[in-house]
Amino acid sequence: MRVFGIDCGTNCTGYGVVDVQVGPRETRLVAVAAGGLRLAKDQPLHLRLAYIFAELTALLEMHRPDVVAVEGVFYSVNAKSALKLGHVRGVALLAAALQGLPVAEYAPLTIKSAVVGYGMAQKEQVQYMVARLLNLDHAPKPADAADALAIAICHVHTAQTLSLQAESRA
Amino acid sequence: MRVFGIDCGTNCTGYGVVDVQVGPRETRLVAVAAGGLRLAKDQPLHLRLAYIFAELTALLEMHRPDVVAVEGVFYSVNAKSALKLGHVRGVALLAAALQGLPVAEYAPLTIKSAVVGYGMAQKEQVQYMVARLLNLDHAPKPADAADALAIAICHVHTAQTLSLQAESRA
Repeated sequence: MRVFGIDCGTNCTGYGVVDVQVGPRETRLVAVAAGGLRLAKDQPLHLRLAYIFAELTALLEMHRPDVVAVEGVFYSVNAKSALKLGHVRGVALLAAALQGLPVAEYAPLTIKSAVVGYGMAQKEQVQYMVARLLNLDHAPKPADAADALAIAICHVHTAQTLSLQAESRA
Repeated sequence: MRVFGIDCGTNCTGYGVVDVQVGPRETRLVAVAAGGLRLAKDQPLHLRLAYIFAELTALLEMHRPDVVAVEGVFYSVNAKSALKLGHVRGVALLAAALQGLPVAEYAPLTIKSAVVGYGMAQKEQVQYMVARLLNLDHAPKPADAADALAIAICHVHTAQTLSLQAESRA
């Protein structure tokens, strides 16, 4: 299974691609790619959105994931920030839909719990655990890329849990 | 000049296409098309956004406007509504960008002023004036379609004002 995580942001949108390699003894997670798409501030909004859409579409076509995972909606931000984030999020979800990919959403608490084992974990703890779980020397930069990998890892863990639950019921 | 107005909404997104016909004596506004794109509530968000995007893209390709006009950002809504609206707005702006069209934004007050002559006008007054200015027997349904026509009319009036100002300076 290959998961494409997206961490939508108004200034920078992170992405991270994680492969699950199931071996005879253990399941390994491998970071295939990660990065951040920075928005040029001097461009009109619709052109910035076109850039994000084109880049995400190219990345999805290149990496051909099985699923796209995004951070779920949280409402601690104000209306102005929420609208700005919504623009980027809408375009990211559209890119996934046009590639025919299913989309999974995870709440910020769920993502931190899945990666650190603690929902209120600090940003640095998440970054540290992302690097450890993926056998990287250090968390990838920018921070949004590491966050996107965390979202992808959350999906893998959740999918594994669901599959184990299904097996135990069978 | 042909203007494509979009009134982004979470439940229904209105569109309205207005032509400007410049005659020897007067400038006429003609409603070419108007309608509303309703979102199916039982579908996942990314598929609903894909529907809006496909419909808007098809309409832009069919009507080939010179410019797209949208309602500017307003922050009277709460964060939850703003994020939902942002998803739709992001996809609408992207559809315009991918057709290579310029996008003009107008504040709600500006739109009402341009159509009714009064920024605090009621919704019904806007609908009435949209029908009058476009020589229609009644305002098109749904209300979002009439609102989209109002946005397009606002762009026409603003563009005419700017052009008159430029002439008077020349």
